Amino acid sequence: MIDKTNQEKIEKAVRMILEAVGEDPDRPGLVETPARVARSYGEIFSSLNAPAFDNYKLFPVEETTEMVLIKDIPFYSMCEHHLLPFFGTVQVAYVPDHKRVMGLSKIPRLIDYCAKRPNVQERLTVNIAKELNRILDPNGVAVSISARHMCMEMRGVEKTGSQTESSYYTGNFKTDTVLKQEFLQRING
Amino acid sequence: MIDKTNQEKIEKAVRMILEAVGEDPDRPGLVETPARVARSYGEIFSSLNAPAFDNYKLFPVEETTEMVLIKDIPFYSMCEHHLLPFFGTVQVAYVPDHKRVMGLSKIPRLIDYCAKRPNVQERLTVNIAKELNRILDPNGVAVSISARHMCMEMRGVEKTGSQTESSYYTGNFKTDTVLKQEFLQRING
Ligand SMILES: Nc1nc2c([nH]c(=O)n2[C@@H]2O[C@H](COP(=O)(O)OP(=O)(O)OP(=O)(O)O)[C@@H](O)[C@H]2O)c(=O)[nH]1
Ligand SMILES: Nc1nc2c([nH]c(=O)n2[C@@H]2O[C@H](COP(=O)(O)OP(=O)(O)OP(=O)(O)O)[C@@H](O)[C@H]2O)c(=O)[nH]1
Repeated sequence: MIDKTNQEKIEKAVRMILEAVGEDPDRPGLVETPARVARSYGEIFSSLNAPAFDNYKLFPVEETTEMVLIKDIPFYSMCEHHLLPFFGTVQVAYVPDHKRVMGLSKIPRLIDYCAKRPNVQERLTVNIAKELNRILDPNGVAVSISARHMCMEMRGVEKTGSQTESSYYTGNFKTDTVLKQEFLQRING
Repeated sequence: MIDKTNQEKIEKAVRMILEAVGEDPDRPGLVETPARVARSYGEIFSSLNAPAFDNYKLFPVEETTEMVLIKDIPFYSMCEHHLLPFFGTVQVAYVPDHKRVMGLSKIPRLIDYCAKRPNVQERLTVNIAKELNRILDPNGVAVSISARHMCMEMRGVEKTGSQTESSYYTGNFKTDTVLKQEFLQRING
């Protein structure tokens, strides 16, 4: 949430932008735009004003399993260089330790937490892995992101539909090539 | 292109936005962002400062053909309500008259011209059709757009991958249901 002072500051800024690009901020379609953009940035950048991610539950299990893999989690973030969206899917895997697992829905919530701020894709990838390590202290974590960047599609080099892939491994995903291979096969299968 | 005064106005506004959402505009990843966003808006909204679209060529033909159909032309525009991208593909068809046709590459250029300003999808659809009518004075025009709206995906209702379709017909595409049916079958085929 953005407080009243900052909401007004963004509204003023958006009006300046509309004027500067050559629009008429008073035409009917645009009169509410400054207020709407300010509220919208409050959502898109919501994790900037949020406390550390602690909205999760760990559940004890009798025996730890092999890799837990959560595939194709959609995410949306904002490119910190151009303030344009980049979005796609995240693949997350971890090998549990300490006989505990994480509530499943908390993984997309954690991804949202990491995504809802100005970002570059590589930092987002690392941040998700580090947060999982902190929370689960697992035997290993693998995070892979495939994304479309509006700053590469709608302007600049204008490459429609191009995908950027990034990944980050910790623990036994780094040391055990067979495990890493299994992760790669399963996310591409 | 955005002139120096307006470039600076946008830079100032982007700095205000970064501060208001809770970012540090002086951190290394963000120092160049205000200038980059200003240049980027110059590209994304380039048709706001452009003269009327007249960068096209008409070629005489000996005999007029049936419908000319150009399928799956990618486009990117900005939602005027949230200043977030919407993008997808445009299907354009026209039935030539006056024994003349338009240079093919000019149709994507015309779409870019209509798209590179704050928009709603329906207005973009109509504008493309009207420009084609103006330029070609054909027997009929059909325009169909399918788009993803970041304002519906990354915030608000958060509907990942939802598509919005809109269409507009003039001339014999309006009166001749068989012709319209052919258009619909071919764009969905
Ligand atoms: N590695 C990486 N690069 C990124 C991300 N987002 C993003 O804009 N970039 C890149 O950051 C660079 C910014 O370069 P620049 O300062 O010359 O800005 P520009 O807009 O003139 O560059 P461009 O027109 O080539 O996009 C671009 O190469 C852009 O593609 C990201 O998430 N990861
Ligand atoms: N028909 C149409 N509606 C659009 C387009 N772009 C766009 O934002 N809208 C809609 O414009 C409306 C703006 O409504 P609002 O003033 O309540 O703004 P809001 O951000 O609070 O709405 P929301 O949170 O439901 O998206 C939304 O319903 C949004 O989906 C478009 O291209 N065509």
